[in-house]
Amino acid sequence: MKAVVFKNKKISVTDVPMPVPSENEALVKIHLAGICATDVELLKGYHDFAGIPGHEFIGIVHCAPDQPGLEGRRIVADINCGCGVCDICLTGDQRHCANRGVIGIRARNGAFAEYCNIPLSNLYVVPDSIEDESAVFAEPLAAALEIVRQVHVTERSRVAVLGDGKMGLLCALVLQQFAPNTVLIGHHPDKLSIAGEQGVRTIFRSKNETDQNLAVHVKDFELVVEASGCANGINEAICMVRPEGTVVIKTTSFEKSVIDFSAVVVNELNLIGSRCGDIAQALDFMEKKMIDFCPMIEAVYSLGDFEKAFAHAGRKGSLKILIGNKNE
Amino acid sequence: MKAVVFKNKKISVTDVPMPVPSENEALVKIHLAGICATDVELLKGYHDFAGIPGHEFIGIVHCAPDQPGLEGRRIVADINCGCGVCDICLTGDQRHCANRGVIGIRARNGAFAEYCNIPLSNLYVVPDSIEDESAVFAEPLAAALEIVRQVHVTERSRVAVLGDGKMGLLCALVLQQFAPNTVLIGHHPDKLSIAGEQGVRTIFRSKNETDQNLAVHVKDFELVVEASGCANGINEAICMVRPEGTVVIKTTSFEKSVIDFSAVVVNELNLIGSRCGDIAQALDFMEKKMIDFCPMIEAVYSLGDFEKAFAHAGRKGSLKILIGNKNE
Repeated sequence: MKAVVFKNKKISVTDVPMPVPSENEALVKIHLAGICATDVELLKGYHDFAGIPGHEFIGIVHCAPDQPGLEGRRIVADINCGCGVCDICLTGDQRHCANRGVIGIRARNGAFAEYCNIPLSNLYVVPDSIEDESAVFAEPLAAALEIVRQVHVTERSRVAVLGDGKMGLLCALVLQQFAPNTVLIGHHPDKLSIAGEQGVRTIFRSKNETDQNLAVHVKDFELVVEASGCANGINEAICMVRPEGTVVIKTTSFEKSVIDFSAVVVNELNLIGSRCGDIAQALDFMEKKMIDFCPMIEAVYSLGDFEKAFAHAGRKGSLKILIGNKNE
Repeated sequence: MKAVVFKNKKISVTDVPMPVPSENEALVKIHLAGICATDVELLKGYHDFAGIPGHEFIGIVHCAPDQPGLEGRRIVADINCGCGVCDICLTGDQRHCANRGVIGIRARNGAFAEYCNIPLSNLYVVPDSIEDESAVFAEPLAAALEIVRQVHVTERSRVAVLGDGKMGLLCALVLQQFAPNTVLIGHHPDKLSIAGEQGVRTIFRSKNETDQNLAVHVKDFELVVEASGCANGINEAICMVRPEGTVVIKTTSFEKSVIDFSAVVVNELNLIGSRCGDIAQALDFMEKKMIDFCPMIEAVYSLGDFEKAFAHAGRKGSLKILIGNKNE
């Protein structure tokens, strides 16, 4: 089958042997897969990944010898594949298993390929009412919803999302459902307008000027979600949050951050790292049709054009780039 | 009166005018004052402080025109002096007032002097059962107790304290009352033994070797208190805490930290800054005599010998240095 391979910081689109499902795995034919900022970091060297990337996807179960009833069903997947036997897995949360594989990120091939093997216990059947172009956002939507599992957000919470990239937009669209006054702060008027048209309050910040709009918000927020994608975003978030407030960190940068922790100590701030969420919750949320995902899709490329697609995804300001494989 | 003045990174011991209490203030004669790591940072430039430092102290009310009943009473004090009218002060917690003065740290003179003015509402009368040499620890003890206000600690919690300096010792001695398996990790056998003799489990780490004792504890703790005093301590703490665990940060360093936030995000860690606590709670705790403070006192100097005392406090590995002023 055709697949994208990352190795030694290089991309190749090549033929590889068709994967064969192990016990309790399904072979999934990939319909659509999204390129994520993490993929860009992986190519730079994050996690020393070598193999087939791709962790946001929707596909159809091609064969599932141990659960044939799943064959032909549209599915999305939890990307964390725990060992199943450690203390953490036994609590039911394999996201933090020390020996986990992570589909397309760590020790497991991913979805930038015609087919991909997925453990049966990671699969979630997609309701018919959710079209492929929405379902492909299940993984990042679950990551955005993870925030409200970690932090108590109410309709009175003063929330800001820093960064109008793909994750920032999703976080703002999700959080405004819990805290209607959620503000999205970003550098790109066109991207801000995607959230703005769905009811989110937005603040445009020029990159180069001291921004009066932002200055009035210093220390104004109880919760700031740092989704800028930049190693320095955390410092901006720290300036914006009120004493004893919370910064949720979504940025995973290969670059280290330089930070003055005395501001964190003196103001008794709470910095919380936030990663993957619950796919079932994301599908429930999607069924309610509270978010229109289509404006976040910038282009769909074929698997053969992956390098062009990846270059497009890497351009400053690009939105979601998908790899479509349904009809190949 | 005689006082210590910090100005332009220089110390002078000099005569200054006797302070006159404003409305709702008391003039306090200082008996004992402790030198804290924060004082060392202040002299380096932290907070651009200029004036009389000293924020750990016990004294006796010399005059209190608006509450004469306090005269002659032994007191300790909350060092945060809020504006009293902002939203945060109106919640009853002046520790985070944006316009606060902080005794001996920010915009208010402190206790390295014969006398010091303190707002009446900041004073706490010291019970007779607590001697001066313990009461002088009320402020740092409250800071250690602040941890259990911020994080739910139970007798089953796996807790480590990183750093066997003055704050690390206090944190370990406090936390073992809540979580008996609390472990103190440090570089100094003599200091570790102070906690060890009061029942705390300790782990000695050599500074230069890879420590096998510590390696077995990687990702083992639910709560790690970072009290190393070093800007890099946070990175060690992050390695030690389990996924979804908590790091409480006590170190306030003038130096910035360089940190890989992707480990915080991927492991969904919670980093919490922690500063001053509740002085009343500290006095209650002291009355129970669960901690012996005396072994933490290394030397007592007179106010006139402040420069010698400060040099002593700045030596690597020194314990609490006090400035005694009772009989002068």
